[in-house]
Amino acid sequence: MTIREEQVLDRIDRARGRKARLREDTITLAHGAGGKATRTLVDAVFREAFGNPLLDRMDDSARFTLNGADLAFTTDSYVVSPLFFPGGDIGDLAVNGTVNDLAVCGARPLHLSAGFILEEGFPVADLRRVTASMRAAADAAGVDIVTGDTKVVERGKADGCYVTTAGVGVVRAAPSGELRPGDAVLVTGPIGEHGVTIMLARGELDIEADLRSDTAPLNCLLAGLADACPGGVRRMRDATRGGVATVLNELASDAGLAVAVDEDAIPVRPAVRGACELLGIDPLYVACEGRAVAVVAPEHADAALAALRAHPLGAEAALIGHVRDDPSGLVLMKTAFGGTRIVDLLVGDPLPRIC
Amino acid sequence: MTIREEQVLDRIDRARGRKARLREDTITLAHGAGGKATRTLVDAVFREAFGNPLLDRMDDSARFTLNGADLAFTTDSYVVSPLFFPGGDIGDLAVNGTVNDLAVCGARPLHLSAGFILEEGFPVADLRRVTASMRAAADAAGVDIVTGDTKVVERGKADGCYVTTAGVGVVRAAPSGELRPGDAVLVTGPIGEHGVTIMLARGELDIEADLRSDTAPLNCLLAGLADACPGGVRRMRDATRGGVATVLNELASDAGLAVAVDEDAIPVRPAVRGACELLGIDPLYVACEGRAVAVVAPEHADAALAALRAHPLGAEAALIGHVRDDPSGLVLMKTAFGGTRIVDLLVGDPLPRIC
Repeated sequence: MTIREEQVLDRIDRARGRKARLREDTITLAHGAGGKATRTLVDAVFREAFGNPLLDRMDDSARFTLNGADLAFTTDSYVVSPLFFPGGDIGDLAVNGTVNDLAVCGARPLHLSAGFILEEGFPVADLRRVTASMRAAADAAGVDIVTGDTKVVERGKADGCYVTTAGVGVVRAAPSGELRPGDAVLVTGPIGEHGVTIMLARGELDIEADLRSDTAPLNCLLAGLADACPGGVRRMRDATRGGVATVLNELASDAGLAVAVDEDAIPVRPAVRGACELLGIDPLYVACEGRAVAVVAPEHADAALAALRAHPLGAEAALIGHVRDDPSGLVLMKTAFGGTRIVDLLVGDPLPRIC
Repeated sequence: MTIREEQVLDRIDRARGRKARLREDTITLAHGAGGKATRTLVDAVFREAFGNPLLDRMDDSARFTLNGADLAFTTDSYVVSPLFFPGGDIGDLAVNGTVNDLAVCGARPLHLSAGFILEEGFPVADLRRVTASMRAAADAAGVDIVTGDTKVVERGKADGCYVTTAGVGVVRAAPSGELRPGDAVLVTGPIGEHGVTIMLARGELDIEADLRSDTAPLNCLLAGLADACPGGVRRMRDATRGGVATVLNELASDAGLAVAVDEDAIPVRPAVRGACELLGIDPLYVACEGRAVAVVAPEHADAALAALRAHPLGAEAALIGHVRDDPSGLVLMKTAFGGTRIVDLLVGDPLPRIC
């Protein structure tokens, strides 16, 4: 069966409301790439086993009420390779990632946990560098790392250092969650810098470019957005694994609506575009770690864009498209050449271990 | 420098209120073993970098108040090898461990997160077995797994499956935290079963024994204890890495008091004792995953023991000793032969990757 045939079967399964089917017998790198294979794994294994109303919302954070407090709770594991790269390292990536998963749910991030899996022989100096970077990122986001754990495995059983952060926040202004036709789709800045930076940092490609990861805490930026358009924010997602294309697909699919974007409107730095062309990949699928997609009501679009651009992390924010009635569940892109193409979910990802 | 000399230097440093010094340049298995090396790593690297009032309490969970709700938050990473063993697997271990870290802080565990780091090629059937076991453990403990994440690393960069759980709970009856001379020290059941089971499951030793891991959720058992002695629970700790000996040392050291225990009173199953004798290790240092140490006010000792024994997971609970004024920070054991010896913290652990 070709990948295309699998995709068609998946779509038929989903249209019929059937359970996701995992066709592989073993885990592949694609299952960790954030695309279609990840989604199938999550549906067929994790949701199948753990299924409960909070998990089934499948948002970036779980939300629940405790003693009247409206809380958000999330986790992410980080296995990025290399551990250190221009613009960041696994430490600030792990803090910012969890901060952002809370922020896109409209929560103020408060407290983080950190679980370390270290390989025997990992340099203590590197661990100090990672933890210093985590502290700096936590300070920048206004959160504390309040609890943690460390395990060590034998040489060859890990790759230096893996970090899993979890975070708790208080929901201050939750997006409404419901997309409507006509809604404006915004991106908070140029896309793909993190992914391309990691790829170049691996040194396997003979490309040099002046690029840095975009890893950053988005909580202030997105809180400003919410304040600027009260009641007008429909949904926010940070565009990590699978990039902006994957986020747009999830938004369209969850809403049963279409998202139409304009290729020319999507900010991509020349160095990212150039590297992607050499690599034959589409920047729309490349991970960001400090960019979010926000959908806002049409009457709030101008205020939203102004609010984002007023913040240093959103200076290059752009309105990239709109929500439409149909074709349901699909993302359409008006290309630079005037045509229109469907932007589908990828099965895997050309870039494993990007975060 | 010998290990003994290092220990003496550590003790001098601590007595003088100096910062912990990490003498190694690279991470060793001992740093993950839960003993003295772990403590030095935590003090010299993690607390040095992250230091804040919540973390500095160094309890099993961090506690904080949100909108008037008194919450506990904790995390643990699991790298146990083998993944499946008599009595459990990495899945229920990861759920029970986080449930127990909340429970010993007097919290009712509510919601868990789960981060998976999978090795390319890991059998999907094994992942289903792990997740089914997590669900069963979550159901048994009355918690939900509400959010998660999956990363995949290349073949040879992990060991099948690592799981990091974090958990949030509401504090219902927090232990007072202050030990006093005369307090009773209890253990909720026979010790060392988990560690010895894992060691035997590795098949490297030609020992057969009818043993199962003690992995279990302690939240109901410990809630019952708190109810039975209102205001009388001083501290509770689950005796995981480093075993009961490590917990007793931490209790004595934190309180600046002594803990005196009676070897004869400590419940150890014959199969555990036999295996430990063959291996030349002391069961007091062997990890449990379903046993806790509780310190209660003397006037509550009988009620506490009765409450523990009324629960199936505490049927073999025992009063093993008392808190004393001095020697400050030390654990003394009256041996079966009538002598007394100091039970010190180990630097490492004879059993890596026990959880």
